[in-house]
Amino acid sequence: MNTEWIAVDWGTSHLRVWAMRDDTVLDQAQSDKGMVRLAKGEFQAALLNLTEGWLGQAPVDVIACGMVGARQGWVEAPYSTVPCEPTPVVPIRVPGTDTRIRAFVVPGLKQTAPPDVMRGEETQIAGFLASHQNWDGVICLPGTHSKWVQVSAGEVVSFRTFMTGEMFDLLRGQSVLKHSIGEGWDDAAFAEATADALSKPEQLAARLFGLRAADLLQGQDGGVARAQLSGFLIGAELAATRPYWLGQQLAIIGAEDLSNIYAKALKQQGAFVETANSTQCTLAGLLQARNLTRQTA
Amino acid sequence: MNTEWIAVDWGTSHLRVWAMRDDTVLDQAQSDKGMVRLAKGEFQAALLNLTEGWLGQAPVDVIACGMVGARQGWVEAPYSTVPCEPTPVVPIRVPGTDTRIRAFVVPGLKQTAPPDVMRGEETQIAGFLASHQNWDGVICLPGTHSKWVQVSAGEVVSFRTFMTGEMFDLLRGQSVLKHSIGEGWDDAAFAEATADALSKPEQLAARLFGLRAADLLQGQDGGVARAQLSGFLIGAELAATRPYWLGQQLAIIGAEDLSNIYAKALKQQGAFVETANSTQCTLAGLLQARNLTRQTA
Repeated sequence: MNTEWIAVDWGTSHLRVWAMRDDTVLDQAQSDKGMVRLAKGEFQAALLNLTEGWLGQAPVDVIACGMVGARQGWVEAPYSTVPCEPTPVVPIRVPGTDTRIRAFVVPGLKQTAPPDVMRGEETQIAGFLASHQNWDGVICLPGTHSKWVQVSAGEVVSFRTFMTGEMFDLLRGQSVLKHSIGEGWDDAAFAEATADALSKPEQLAARLFGLRAADLLQGQDGGVARAQLSGFLIGAELAATRPYWLGQQLAIIGAEDLSNIYAKALKQQGAFVETANSTQCTLAGLLQARNLTRQTA
Repeated sequence: MNTEWIAVDWGTSHLRVWAMRDDTVLDQAQSDKGMVRLAKGEFQAALLNLTEGWLGQAPVDVIACGMVGARQGWVEAPYSTVPCEPTPVVPIRVPGTDTRIRAFVVPGLKQTAPPDVMRGEETQIAGFLASHQNWDGVICLPGTHSKWVQVSAGEVVSFRTFMTGEMFDLLRGQSVLKHSIGEGWDDAAFAEATADALSKPEQLAARLFGLRAADLLQGQDGGVARAQLSGFLIGAELAATRPYWLGQQLAIIGAEDLSNIYAKALKQQGAFVETANSTQCTLAGLLQARNLTRQTA
């Protein structure tokens, strides 16, 4: 198959790998061996378990981004401090690996005031900018911990992280709302809830209990409740990020369904939004990171 | 011991019982046999397990309030609809009990628009009003699901429920913040976080992740983070309830520590606050409910 290098997106809960020739994907695989499921000495085995068949005699470059670079990860890759380019330094070499691989981890970014951190998104941003020369604006990366990132002259100027996705998962799965939230969806209910939260973001904790009460008293549909929960949380995030998106050039990088939900909410507010495929951005960013390691090799 | 009646506070997660003679407590007991841990047929056994020693030949009245009256409870006690007195109807008799008890459950209250419900707090409100004749104002009942209740001319006029306590528990125990939140407390950090949330309630999801980032980058103390988490959530609740407490006569009924935290935050905003002991309010309310059952017996 002639794998030139291996791209790795290694987050908190998932490990995804791609066998690459330059920017072409030859093969791919994934597992649930995210950072939280691995002890310090278990990272290499988890990686080799997915990639063994892609390796030959000559060492293959492995370029990884994400929580794999945290203190509890495979190797700690110290944060770069914004403002700076998304991937300003050479990825950190993992010491003492199997001789069939040369593994590197891309450092995350930190912001001093207000304190904030990212690991993985910097690589997606680098990948996005690689195909958008001279792009200035704001990038939204929705997810468990949504990021809003101000980009200018090729640098990340500032960013803010929102626990929106994690709150959605906790409230849907672990709170009293689990009895009232189903699997469906309702676009109109989402739009109404988003608009409500944008105008009254302080009412969040009351709106949430209202979902339970509406179920108890009116037997409200579980899919409507799911769309409302999403709308209340995303609407509050949009209320907080208004200075980021109002009148700005705006791109969303994320999973397709979630990106579409954010794009819909933002378009309702009159924002102009471009969406980008997150996997393509990750692979383009990892390719750039690989080139950094070769320039200094 | 001559138990005249048994007072029961039966919530989602706890069962508390008191042996009573008129308004005097003779004995008390509690267990973790809250509603969520009991199937339909297990309520009486859980009660008798705690109260057996208080029973004699003649049937003893048992007066219970709380989630025990929910559809999944011992007997469903249908909600009364506000505006109405806090306990406007005779408690619902539990059918087919052991002959040593005559058990009753106090109905909760519901509000049609916006939809909202309470079970248990109506009894505390009735108990509070029993010792505060002609009291008009707003009662705050902080807890897992905090209630803000507008009272006028002896009636509950309207109320709103906030998931503040449940969100605190989920975020502290189940989210990424669990790594950064400790056991201590810091009054100044709480005050600052409350004021911040009152002025920028929409920033909640960003402030939450900031607690994690401040720990990662600055090694922030876990007790400070705990006070800040509490301040961000309570501050958002106070931002939403401003029309309830601004310039109003205000009473807080709740657990002592939590009531003191709410009172401190409200006093910082210039509100005048009275606090009432929640157990005393519950017992006074259950005594009133018992009198209702006897008037119609």
